[in-house]
Amino acid sequence: MGMMGASLAAGLRKQPNPPAITGVVRSERSKQWILDHDLADEAIASTSMDVFRLGLSRYDLIVLGMPIAANGVLLENLAEIYPGDFQWAAPSFSDQEQGVESSNPEAKRPLDGNQDDSLPLITDMSSTRTYLEEVAARYPHLPFIGSHPMCGSEDAGPSAFRDSLFRDRLVILIRSTLRNSDDEQAYKLLNQFWSSLGARVSELNEKDHDLVLAYLSHAPHLVSSLLATVTANRSEVQTINAQSPIPITGGGLRDMLRIAGSNPEMWKDIIHTNRKYILESLRDFRSGLDELIETVESDSMEWWSDWQTRSRGFRNEICGFEEKR
Amino acid sequence: MGMMGASLAAGLRKQPNPPAITGVVRSERSKQWILDHDLADEAIASTSMDVFRLGLSRYDLIVLGMPIAANGVLLENLAEIYPGDFQWAAPSFSDQEQGVESSNPEAKRPLDGNQDDSLPLITDMSSTRTYLEEVAARYPHLPFIGSHPMCGSEDAGPSAFRDSLFRDRLVILIRSTLRNSDDEQAYKLLNQFWSSLGARVSELNEKDHDLVLAYLSHAPHLVSSLLATVTANRSEVQTINAQSPIPITGGGLRDMLRIAGSNPEMWKDIIHTNRKYILESLRDFRSGLDELIETVESDSMEWWSDWQTRSRGFRNEICGFEEKR
Repeated sequence: MGMMGASLAAGLRKQPNPPAITGVVRSERSKQWILDHDLADEAIASTSMDVFRLGLSRYDLIVLGMPIAANGVLLENLAEIYPGDFQWAAPSFSDQEQGVESSNPEAKRPLDGNQDDSLPLITDMSSTRTYLEEVAARYPHLPFIGSHPMCGSEDAGPSAFRDSLFRDRLVILIRSTLRNSDDEQAYKLLNQFWSSLGARVSELNEKDHDLVLAYLSHAPHLVSSLLATVTANRSEVQTINAQSPIPITGGGLRDMLRIAGSNPEMWKDIIHTNRKYILESLRDFRSGLDELIETVESDSMEWWSDWQTRSRGFRNEICGFEEKR
Repeated sequence: MGMMGASLAAGLRKQPNPPAITGVVRSERSKQWILDHDLADEAIASTSMDVFRLGLSRYDLIVLGMPIAANGVLLENLAEIYPGDFQWAAPSFSDQEQGVESSNPEAKRPLDGNQDDSLPLITDMSSTRTYLEEVAARYPHLPFIGSHPMCGSEDAGPSAFRDSLFRDRLVILIRSTLRNSDDEQAYKLLNQFWSSLGARVSELNEKDHDLVLAYLSHAPHLVSSLLATVTANRSEVQTINAQSPIPITGGGLRDMLRIAGSNPEMWKDIIHTNRKYILESLRDFRSGLDELIETVESDSMEWWSDWQTRSRGFRNEICGFEEKR
């Protein structure tokens, strides 16, 4: 359980009839922290799914919450645990008894309750999708549907959790182009799960997802980090700013740098697994920058009003803002 | 009076002993709006300072609130009104009676009170400084000290005013390298004026100001507009985003686009008058972007953790953030 896993657990814990939760964490220290903060009914320190080789049928839903590549390994791991001819069927619990998990498995019933033979649906919270769909395509017996809850934070680690993290945020469910993805019962269950936390749910295929996210999230994150780096590398700027009674950034740069350098471990995976589209978006950005620099060089003043006005329109369209002017 | 002038007036109006204010606006409609909202004791619709050829001694302070080039014209205009051998002397009023103005002149005493021969100190609220210092250097008799209150907003026009706009924001007073700027009484008066609105006041020369602001404000604004433009120009991204129940931007891009396309009229002047340093900052940014693209191309995964971690440190230094992890 990192920031998102802990937030997921905290959100579930606030529900009227919360499901039982088993939290899987990487260290004994985190395990204690999770239990101390009542974010799970039981916690297990482990970096693999092997601990679930026995007793997997206690769970209704597994939510993988590791970085992308590690989630891929967990999927491979689970593929060995699920029977090779496994066919998922919707569990027969009411909405109130819906079972779940976070950062990893979670119990569907009291942990010492009756067990049946059904095995949990698997989802995750990764920021890129093609990579995991390629892994999942190798294991058609895995009941996996990818989820991307768009509610990252620039703060990492479980202590940054918020029980309202998912409220009014978008969760994108993936309809794979690489394998069968028409189990409507499973989509319905995931839709209900995320909706119960206040999220808005939509669907995309993995390619559209990764393309759109490169432009709307990944490249902007890199641009934010780049702005911080470029600014800091100009030594006079750093020196003069450091001498100011309060930073000379104004609100604009402060907002633009909020996401700079977010969670390095997670971003390494995002960049690696979405290189193709991130490159496309960064190259588009460089073409735009070249044009911008040429325009400043040529001092074509009449260009700016139009360009700024158009940018403003694009901004409002992209973000769904209404102009207040 | 635009957004900043109206905010300045509103902030002054909330003070215990508010100074009398004359607001200068560009249209009869704005004049009525200013008076309807009680943002001035009197309002004048004019685009020049000629209306103050008589009665300038009624004022203690003139605050120019037009875009930069227009402020330059107003300075030239004022240079003709002030006697060629004028020497400014601090007015003899107590703090409570301190007189001021916004977007333009403002009365120091009840508008029908006694007049004396002193003429007002002049300041402004422009975002670049070298251009105006070059204008002012031609008129050594003008009692002008530039102010840059760093509290712009992406919303323009007087109706976007906020009486707390200047609170806890930085106001940079300019110590010119191009002309005499050692009238400590004048700096003290301006420091008190902005401080009375809750601002933090510092000083820079015009070159350092324009260099630092290119990196910490102007280039970031252009990058924000560019992000909006590049994103919108990729048609699949626009289409898919428009079909989503809520925008796919997450909080990151939304923050980064907040300042995109702000006030086109103002930005045209900022870019024109600070071309040199804006070009330097954009070229630095392009070098960084080239390096970033090469690194994504070569898929050097070990590079990212370091780079993100360093960016994070820079971000915290630049913005004065403390890490919450």
